[in-house]
Amino acid sequence: MFSPENRAAYTAGNGERIVVETRDCFGGKARTSKDLFEDIAMGNVNPATGPIAVDGLTAGETLCVSIEKIRCGKSGVMMCSPNLGILCEDVRRSRTKIIPIRDGKAVFSRDLSVELNPHIGVIGVSPPRGDIPVFYPGDFGGNLDTVEVREGSKVYLPTYHDGAMVSIGDVHAAMGDGEVCGTGIEVAAELTLRLSGNDDLEIKRPMIETPTEWIAYAAAKTLDEAAKLATSDLVRFVSNRLGTDFEEAYMLASAAANLRISQVVDPLMAARMSISKKYL
Amino acid sequence: MFSPENRAAYTAGNGERIVVETRDCFGGKARTSKDLFEDIAMGNVNPATGPIAVDGLTAGETLCVSIEKIRCGKSGVMMCSPNLGILCEDVRRSRTKIIPIRDGKAVFSRDLSVELNPHIGVIGVSPPRGDIPVFYPGDFGGNLDTVEVREGSKVYLPTYHDGAMVSIGDVHAAMGDGEVCGTGIEVAAELTLRLSGNDDLEIKRPMIETPTEWIAYAAAKTLDEAAKLATSDLVRFVSNRLGTDFEEAYMLASAAANLRISQVVDPLMAARMSISKKYL
Repeated sequence: MFSPENRAAYTAGNGERIVVETRDCFGGKARTSKDLFEDIAMGNVNPATGPIAVDGLTAGETLCVSIEKIRCGKSGVMMCSPNLGILCEDVRRSRTKIIPIRDGKAVFSRDLSVELNPHIGVIGVSPPRGDIPVFYPGDFGGNLDTVEVREGSKVYLPTYHDGAMVSIGDVHAAMGDGEVCGTGIEVAAELTLRLSGNDDLEIKRPMIETPTEWIAYAAAKTLDEAAKLATSDLVRFVSNRLGTDFEEAYMLASAAANLRISQVVDPLMAARMSISKKYL
Repeated sequence: MFSPENRAAYTAGNGERIVVETRDCFGGKARTSKDLFEDIAMGNVNPATGPIAVDGLTAGETLCVSIEKIRCGKSGVMMCSPNLGILCEDVRRSRTKIIPIRDGKAVFSRDLSVELNPHIGVIGVSPPRGDIPVFYPGDFGGNLDTVEVREGSKVYLPTYHDGAMVSIGDVHAAMGDGEVCGTGIEVAAELTLRLSGNDDLEIKRPMIETPTEWIAYAAAKTLDEAAKLATSDLVRFVSNRLGTDFEEAYMLASAAANLRISQVVDPLMAARMSISKKYL
């Protein structure tokens, strides 16, 4: 659970480089293809490491999580189940697939390897109030399931409590936009991160900065609502950066920014909108 | 209107190379920044060239539209309006922007040029029954507004009438995924195409083939529904191609295929799911 009641497991200095070990989304319990979703994961996924308090960060400041390194474990797992994913009613039998990660690829089957795009599924801060299961996304971050949360990116989150209280987990060795069956290639991982306060960016919802793009992220009950929120955030961000009015930024976003799907399988749907830094 | 009542303007040989001139989505009526959406475009956009009958094509066959060349006009136009787009309620005043296309870029403002990604907005066949306005997307194609409908791609459509009766228009010199304000950079264009029947691919909804990807496209009342249809079509396509069961194809799609947004501003929302040919 993300919860304001959780006590800090560690306090990191502002900007200190830290190494975080994360378990896979099933807590390492899926060891063979016989370990099915219903037996080991129903209502109980995405253990996150934390919370980590950021020394000196005051509630309301923006948190910046710089992702310096993602080292994936040597074995991944995928599951599909009638209780999971956008086509759950079409799944006849639950299945678990153990997927070796070898030579920079995921060995999906004897004849087929999948390219890796390692990224962190869960990064969230302590929410304003109440307990939120770790498989939920929201304004506080959480289960972002967004492929750009990768090495070299920075994730910005609003904070509601002193120290931010960051929890992290659910790394995917590979996942396509949508995460349609409900899992990516789920792995344990070792992450090298820096957590710091950021005074320049005022946000209500997560934003992601890659070396080449700015991305506004939003989660909501429907994809349509999430798409609207992400667009609104990105257009306002562009308008601020360029010093243009809303309409000019809106048309630029329509011509040059990409509204995309993060995932359609968590309790809330998530969309994001990205624009190349060359336009800002 | 797309309508079974429309008579063929031209009959093309099966596989014949044809050149099609298209007007921009406003029929060329937006000549200056004073020509606003409410005055020239309300309820009347996307004139399409056609219908073109394909000689010998029988109702029920799949149509293949090969896009060999897209030559954009030298001037584009964008509009935003309180009557248009995903953030329509935030638009204070309608605006029209005339955008020169110069040296392979769109001159958006004095300081800012936008990269081109020329693509065809509207490709549709005569629908099974009834009249459908040209700004609607659907199983018959129509207002696809999908960036991969570009040079080098093939668009596959189901057909409902002999000759398919293809209409084409609404070219964009540039557009981001989502087309959030309701327009891309709208241009007149000259298209070089081949229309042919295809016996190998049986489809209910549009599919797009690029040199490197296969893409399943779907339009529906909500983005959530469109996403589900596109995923279902793509997973079944993958399952057929690889000879795997549904579950295996579903997990592969979750790890390696991308569920994306085409547009969120037409009367129906559109999503697509793409997979690299290297996995097929």
